[in-house]
Parts: sequence; C-alpha cells; structure tokens
Amino acid sequence: METRLEEVLASISPVDRTPEAEGQAHLDNLTKPIGSLGRLEELALQLFLVQGGAPQPDPMRIYTIAGDHGVNEEGVSPYPQEVTRQMVLNFLNGGAGINVLAQTVSAQLFVVDAGCCGGPFDEHPALIRAKVAPGTANLANGPAMTREQCIEALLLGVSLADRAHADGVRVLATGDMGISNTTPSTALYSAFLGLDPAALTGPGAGLPAASLPAKTAVIRRGLEANKPAIDSGDPVSILAALGGLEIAALAGLILGGAKNRQLVCVDGFISTAAYLSAWKIAPAVKDYCVISHGSAEPGHAQAVKAMGLNPYLHLGFRLGEGTGSACALFLVRAAANIYNNMATFASAGVSESS
Amino acid sequence: METRLEEVLASISPVDRTPEAEGQAHLDNLTKPIGSLGRLEELALQLFLVQGGAPQPDPMRIYTIAGDHGVNEEGVSPYPQEVTRQMVLNFLNGGAGINVLAQTVSAQLFVVDAGCCGGPFDEHPALIRAKVAPGTANLANGPAMTREQCIEALLLGVSLADRAHADGVRVLATGDMGISNTTPSTALYSAFLGLDPAALTGPGAGLPAASLPAKTAVIRRGLEANKPAIDSGDPVSILAALGGLEIAALAGLILGGAKNRQLVCVDGFISTAAYLSAWKIAPAVKDYCVISHGSAEPGHAQAVKAMGLNPYLHLGFRLGEGTGSACALFLVRAAANIYNNMATFASAGVSESS
Repeated sequence: METRLEEVLASISPVDRTPEAEGQAHLDNLTKPIGSLGRLEELALQLFLVQGGAPQPDPMRIYTIAGDHGVNEEGVSPYPQEVTRQMVLNFLNGGAGINVLAQTVSAQLFVVDAGCCGGPFDEHPALIRAKVAPGTANLANGPAMTREQCIEALLLGVSLADRAHADGVRVLATGDMGISNTTPSTALYSAFLGLDPAALTGPGAGLPAASLPAKTAVIRRGLEANKPAIDSGDPVSILAALGGLEIAALAGLILGGAKNRQLVCVDGFISTAAYLSAWKIAPAVKDYCVISHGSAEPGHAQAVKAMGLNPYLHLGFRLGEGTGSACALFLVRAAANIYNNMATFASAGVSESS
Repeated sequence: METRLEEVLASISPVDRTPEAEGQAHLDNLTKPIGSLGRLEELALQLFLVQGGAPQPDPMRIYTIAGDHGVNEEGVSPYPQEVTRQMVLNFLNGGAGINVLAQTVSAQLFVVDAGCCGGPFDEHPALIRAKVAPGTANLANGPAMTREQCIEALLLGVSLADRAHADGVRVLATGDMGISNTTPSTALYSAFLGLDPAALTGPGAGLPAASLPAKTAVIRRGLEANKPAIDSGDPVSILAALGGLEIAALAGLILGGAKNRQLVCVDGFISTAAYLSAWKIAPAVKDYCVISHGSAEPGHAQAVKAMGLNPYLHLGFRLGEGTGSACALFLVRAAANIYNNMATFASAGVSESS
C-alpha cells in the first residue's frame, strides 16, 4: 500500500505554465476591458492550465465523504454521533443541503462511507461503500488512525478521482460529513501551520461558546498525545495521528485529482484541512485546487490566510457536505464558458481602448 | 407622464413581514445546523417575503439597458463613444460577457436601447427599441436630461418590469452599457450620499490613474452646474440632472419590480447608482432588491457601505452589463431550492442538536 501511494505521489507534478501567456492573451482579447471579470478570469486561466487546453467544466462531480470520530466521546459536538449515519441516509434520499445544491449546479453527487460507525450501509447507486474502519480512535488519547488505515483512506480518495476520470469527469468538488470533525481538522491546522488551537477552535455545528475552552483542551491533549507523530514532520503520520477517515480520503481525492489533471474545488473547514494535508504530502496539488469559499467557522479565515489562499465565495456557510464547493462549481462553469464563448474585439467589430 | 409615475409610486409598499417568523421557522427546521447556510438563508427568506409564499426563482430575466452620455466629450473614458452601439450589437450577436453568463445561469436576456447615440437599431427579438433620446447632454455644463426625458426613461423601466411580470418572470436582474457612465453614477453617489467625488472617482473601464483628477474635476463641475437641482432635494430632479437614460431606466426597472413584487438583483457600480436613485424616489424598493456583488470600481464599496448594503459576491468584476447580477441569480435559485427542496429533521429522521 505504501508503494502504491509512492507511485501516486510520483505522478503528481506542477501544472505546465508554458501556455500561460497564450491563455492570458486570449482572455485579454475578449470583448471586455482587460481583467474586468476579475476572479472569473483567474479561475478560467487556472482551469486552462490544469487541463492544458480550452477549459471543459463538465461533467462535474462532488464526492461527499463520511466518517466518524472517536474524539466525539469527549463531548466536542452538540449532535449525537449517529447523525453522521442519519445524514448519509438523508443524502441518499436527496434531502440534504448538498443534494439541493448539487442538483442546482447540475453536478453529479456521490456519497462515500469511508469510516462511519456501525455496519455497512445497504447498496445504493449514489453510495460508494468503502469503510476503512467504523470510526477512528479518540485522538485525545493517541493516534486517531494507524498508518495503514490512513494510507488506505488516502488511496480510497485516489480511487475516487480515478473513477471520476474514467467517467470523463473534468472537475471535482469535495464535501464531508462527520459529527465532531471540526476537532480533528483544528488539530491538523494547529500541527501543520503551527497555529494556537485556542485561536482556531470554533463552534462547528453549534457548540455553545461556554464549551469552547473544553474543546480547545481536548485538541491540546491530542497534540500532546501525538507529539511523536507531529515531531516526526512526516505529513502522513500527522494526518494519521490527528485526522479522520473522511479527511484522509478527501486528501487522497485531492492527490488523485492532481495526478489526473482534474480541477478540485475544495469546500470549507474540514475539506481545507484535507487540502492542507495533501499539500504537505505533495505540494504540487496547490496548482489543481480552488478554495471555494471562506467558512463561517472562525478558524478557517486564519488557516486560509496562513496557506496564502483567497476563497472565491464568502457566504457565511458552515455546513460542510460540499455546499460551498457546489456553489463554486457554478463559477467554474461560468469561467470556462467566458473563456470559450465570448467574442474577441476583432470578431465582434468592437473598438479597443485608447 | 408625471401622473403615471405618481401612480406607480403609490403602488409600491414595503413587503409584508407578517409571515417572516413562519419562513424562518421553516428554514430552521431543515436538516442542517440553524443558520449554517448563511447568506443563502437570508436570500431565501427575502425571496419568500417578496413573493409572499414558497420562493419561485424561475423564470429569471436580465435587462441590459444601454445609453450614451454627453459628458463623454470631456474625455472621461478611454473608449470611444461608438463602443456603446458596438456592444449592443455584440449583445445581440451573443458574444459579450453578459450573454455567456445569462446562458450559464439559464436566465432570459433582453437588451434595451434607452438612449444610444445614432438612429434606431434594426429589429431583433432580444432588443427592445425604446430610445428616449440619442444620448444625454453634458452634465458638466447643466442637466443631463430634461425632467420629461428622465420620467420617460423611468416609465420605460417600469414597463420592462411589467412586461416581465406579464411573461411570468419571478426574478429580475439589472445590467448597463454606456461608455462614460461611471461619471454620472459617481455624480449621483456624491449628490445623494454627500460623499466627496475625489474619494469615489475610479478608472471605470480603464482610465489611467493620471487622468482621474481630471475626471473628478468634471464631476465637480457637474455638481456645481446642477446645484439648483441638487439643492431642491427632489430625487427625480437630481437623477435628471446627473444621471443617464439607461440609469433612469434601470431605476424605473427597480421601481417596477417593487411594484410587481419581483425580486431585483442589482448589478454593480452603475446599477447601484440607479438603485440609490430609485430608493430616494421610493424607499420601499429596498425590500425588493439584492445587491449582487461588490464592484472593483473603488467607489462602489463606499457607496454600498453608505447605503448599508452587504453584497453577496466579491469577484472583482468591473464590467457591468449585468455580469455580477447574473452570477447572483445562481444564488437566488440555490436559495429558493434550499427553501423548497430540503428535508426537515422530522421527515428525514435526523436527530437534532442537544
């Protein structure tokens, strides 16, 4: 398994920037003042470079990956753990926020059981049953995953990107479901970025303010209990120690997207922690990723700033599931259409500026 | 004409907030933490109140209204005046940014000649030929429009909202085309909001920084030359003195939308000046309007702040045409779908938080 991961990593390289001037010249010659579509032009150029030609946004696919967390036993979420499972069923029944937004943006949606508690789900055409383990261990007491589990989850994510690639999907989007998963995400930000957990800890799905110091204390315990992994500097070990099965699978999805030259729209607080993990494992993934939105979870702005990223949307979302990345998919399609379908000054007979 | 405008204004009233608690309770009972879809929920609630029932986003229609400006002779734009006309033809040929974005978001697009220089355009199914005058007078020397022209343009805008209403359109979006029209827009912000033109003047479609002081001086001349209208405090007189035919028609579109209980997505710098004018004429329009995006034109942020508005998107657009409002239409549809199509905790069998 370790060998397979090494093969994947060896096949990830930065985008070829040779055609950048050509792509920029094309954008500048469209019938609009230069740069006047702002970040949509930035997005079009990125997609052009990722795909190495005229941007093709469709088909698009969102993977919403679910997993449970041993640290839930510390009382870090106001929701009971079974909600992860209930929400997977809600996804399969089409009733969740991500169902509505995926349909609104005409993106495919697949739900993945990477590590929900309990037994396997019944078969469903929109469900990928790939449980690595029924939840993680409690990261406050030691590693959340074994290295083998973490690599299995990473490779699951790679296989999701590969499956999409085989189906002709051009653009991927990430989503998560996992009660208590702001806790491992915050721990990952702290470990990878050297940020203080107290400054990053937020309410997640709705923890009362009075409970935040206790949540911070749990994260501090986790960082202390996993000091050997953190001190090793090895990103896979850090992800195994502090992450989650859905987070590792999302990191793998990002690695796989980069390997396959697919643009990956990264969702909010949890997905960005997966992105950060993937980035530490293979820095070139940055060229293939878009940070979809700034989450209302307060630590996200700090993490994103530390990573040097600039989210496309700021809508105050804090739901996860891929709801922010689904909205960003609209911008990706708009950017590609601008690149492909606008007239040039010459073709439209429009005078240029003096 | 004055009487007809008075009739329109008399039929605009604030939204009925009686069902607000019912709408909010519905949103709070959907399978997500309360408020976790942030501004999409705010938008859903506004649409619910505007329409007085379950939100219906479609069909959507964008009106891109064009006009020319006598002040162009002062050298306030790097583009020649004939570009307004050329761009109208580009819209009709489907090659402009707004064509691509309207198609991407599945909105109808109509182009309106409210006041382009030159003779009438040839007939075209997407063109509404309603030229009030072939451009305005130079606002730096006196009123840009007569009061009669301004009211005719306002009533043109109302008629566009009415035509959409008759066609079953539920949501409107504004767009503009008019070389030099950041100059009258800046003058309107200055007059209505009491802001210094120097702080508001920006490059528009690409005026070099070295030319900005001269543009500011032109605006100051216009404010001085139209002091009697400004001092009158009458918003129609101020709009006539400093505005443009497309700006007045956009203001009328907003008045008409409010009259017809249609949500109006307001585009950027020019459309917001029209919105401000409509707001001064009939303050209740605010309930029916959405400020789609924050423009990259630097004065927009100040104007929007002074108006107490919070744009939905920040994509660095400064193109006009309705490109920002077209993107916001996606959010409107997403918000309506969230309201209508998500499961409730009870229906999905999902546990609520403690």
